[in-house]
Amino acid sequence: TSQFRITLLPGDGIGPEIINVAVDVLKVVGKKFDIEFGFQEALIGGAAIDATGEPLPTATLDICRNSDAILLAAIGGYKWDSLPPNQRPEGGLLGLRAGLELFANLRPAKIIPELIDASTLKKEVIEGVDIMVVRELTGGIYFGKPRGIFATETGEKRGVNTMAYNESEIERIGRVAFETAKKRTGKLCSVDKANVLDVSQLWRSRITELGKEYPDVELSHMYVDNAAMQLVRSPKQFDTIVTGNLFGDILSDVAAMLTGSIGMLPSASLGASGPGVYEPVHGSAPDIAGLDKANPLAQVLSAAMMLRYGLNQATAADHIEQAVSLILQRGFRTGDIMSPGMTLLGCRTMGDALIQAL
Amino acid sequence: TSQFRITLLPGDGIGPEIINVAVDVLKVVGKKFDIEFGFQEALIGGAAIDATGEPLPTATLDICRNSDAILLAAIGGYKWDSLPPNQRPEGGLLGLRAGLELFANLRPAKIIPELIDASTLKKEVIEGVDIMVVRELTGGIYFGKPRGIFATETGEKRGVNTMAYNESEIERIGRVAFETAKKRTGKLCSVDKANVLDVSQLWRSRITELGKEYPDVELSHMYVDNAAMQLVRSPKQFDTIVTGNLFGDILSDVAAMLTGSIGMLPSASLGASGPGVYEPVHGSAPDIAGLDKANPLAQVLSAAMMLRYGLNQATAADHIEQAVSLILQRGFRTGDIMSPGMTLLGCRTMGDALIQAL
Ligand SMILES: CC(C)[C@H](C(=O)O)[C@@H](O)C(=O)O
Ligand SMILES: CC(C)[C@H](C(=O)O)[C@@H](O)C(=O)O
Repeated sequence: TSQFRITLLPGDGIGPEIINVAVDVLKVVGKKFDIEFGFQEALIGGAAIDATGEPLPTATLDICRNSDAILLAAIGGYKWDSLPPNQRPEGGLLGLRAGLELFANLRPAKIIPELIDASTLKKEVIEGVDIMVVRELTGGIYFGKPRGIFATETGEKRGVNTMAYNESEIERIGRVAFETAKKRTGKLCSVDKANVLDVSQLWRSRITELGKEYPDVELSHMYVDNAAMQLVRSPKQFDTIVTGNLFGDILSDVAAMLTGSIGMLPSASLGASGPGVYEPVHGSAPDIAGLDKANPLAQVLSAAMMLRYGLNQATAADHIEQAVSLILQRGFRTGDIMSPGMTLLGCRTMGDALIQAL
Repeated sequence: TSQFRITLLPGDGIGPEIINVAVDVLKVVGKKFDIEFGFQEALIGGAAIDATGEPLPTATLDICRNSDAILLAAIGGYKWDSLPPNQRPEGGLLGLRAGLELFANLRPAKIIPELIDASTLKKEVIEGVDIMVVRELTGGIYFGKPRGIFATETGEKRGVNTMAYNESEIERIGRVAFETAKKRTGKLCSVDKANVLDVSQLWRSRITELGKEYPDVELSHMYVDNAAMQLVRSPKQFDTIVTGNLFGDILSDVAAMLTGSIGMLPSASLGASGPGVYEPVHGSAPDIAGLDKANPLAQVLSAAMMLRYGLNQATAADHIEQAVSLILQRGFRTGDIMSPGMTLLGCRTMGDALIQAL
């Protein structure tokens, strides 16, 4: 029997509903594959603000550090939007990434054949699209200093953030990207803005140098404006994309939206050692929170990613992913991916259907 | 007779071919509407590097300053890609923007009904899309200091750029955006990353305050990752978008690509006073340079924008835009927008067709 301690971070909005489904799925899969999960829940985001005044209580970070993997649902909501920025739910997420040094964010954007019609792009353009965005997650303009709003000599305010990368930061995310590309089709596109930004020039030269260690990976470079455009024009040209924190935030969302089924996409945030965080790409959807309408499948697929990348349980991960395929083939849909002729389920009944399929 | 001094900056690649067509069109329109153009050509980009060693010779900036408007074609090419960044063609463009204080970049992305099938998005998603991106062009991370590649204490290199905005910079681009939105449908979406960046928090609060002076404009705010996603998901929700230099670079390209006909899109870069720069959104296409294959229509439409925004000659601008519509309706196409059953023309013959239509 393998034993794992899993921290659950339900967070806000639809978070608790969808994470419940994922836990049920993990329990069933655990029995089947002789894996024992010890689940411990902790507070993050708005829920943590309401209970403790902080978006990431120290207790939460401690629990996370002492676990083998972290399953996060979603954070944020209208309720906390008027709080000062550093006291908002997002701060919990950024604190978690920094606190656990989760520098590598893997965001797959893969077309699900059953849901291809949900895309706003033409079928022939997106058929077979399978992109992995490797986004740097603990550096760049998200964390660079100086930052703040300062008074200038003329008395007006000046907002300042710093986009910075050290060579070693570029190298470690670069390695993850090259290794990822190697396991996929061997094509890596590094995205920067080297025609304007110094930090991008360092990024490009360091990635280029690193490429010499990976002769079997075909490396290309693209400016971020062009990359965003090319994702819309011809997404099939991409396999693995590596980029900094801010560009990765934007491009991974564009790539996700191409698929038309953002409610289906998981992600992983990994560090050099220690537990990773696995979470859906979508947000907390406060408008449908508590209504049993949420799509739990991205959360379930995040649990599969956790098994694969964090716990080395590829067979169990495969099993979950196959079950998700199966129920889609059977025509089960939540509201966000509903189409004529399919069977509409709620969050809970979608979970039941999954367990059936397992 | 109105008299105008126009600086022509052909630049690189297909630049000279397409600007020739625009000049021919302007001459014809000038005769018709009693406008006299004095054209003066100057060097920029790679062409300027080859001739003088610099991407923006002082002479060019002087000529530009002494003109009523500047028509730019395109800059850059493989040939100069290995030069150190500050000596590259792009430096000429950035220098021109800074030198003339062109802080407001207007980038329309409008579906052309005749070319709607060229989009990779489904017809029902993009039908009627008409977006104006108002991008700040002389501030933000493009020009912020400190910038450079520095040595750290540990001996490794650190690349640094600074994203900064003063209140006054935000206010002046904000005004252009509100005025633009007012003349359009009255909807303005301001894009930032205020949940992470201090500079965006100042941006959002300043734009919000400014909004009080424009009660007839419906102002909304969106995070840049979401905005990029929403452009792909449902572009019709947008009318006018206002954002900073870097976000505007990315989002205006995504918006342009939605239309499927980036070879058709003009842009304007305007300052508080002095001449503006009018140029196609597309690049210098070095692969087809000199082959008489380029699409001159974005350049021609840039000349129309120049007449409208820079020279206050709206009737002449209308006339050019109608001629472009007409030749598209007649089925004339260059290679980039060719489709079955249409008549394929080269750059020069497309120019002839236009002159006919005028
Ligand atoms: C919520 C926000 C801080 C976060 C980010 O910008 O990283 C989100 O957009 C994401 O991509 O995970
Ligand atoms: C060529 C480059 C410097 C420029 C920019 O980033 O502004 C271009 O992409 C643009 O959008 O005009």
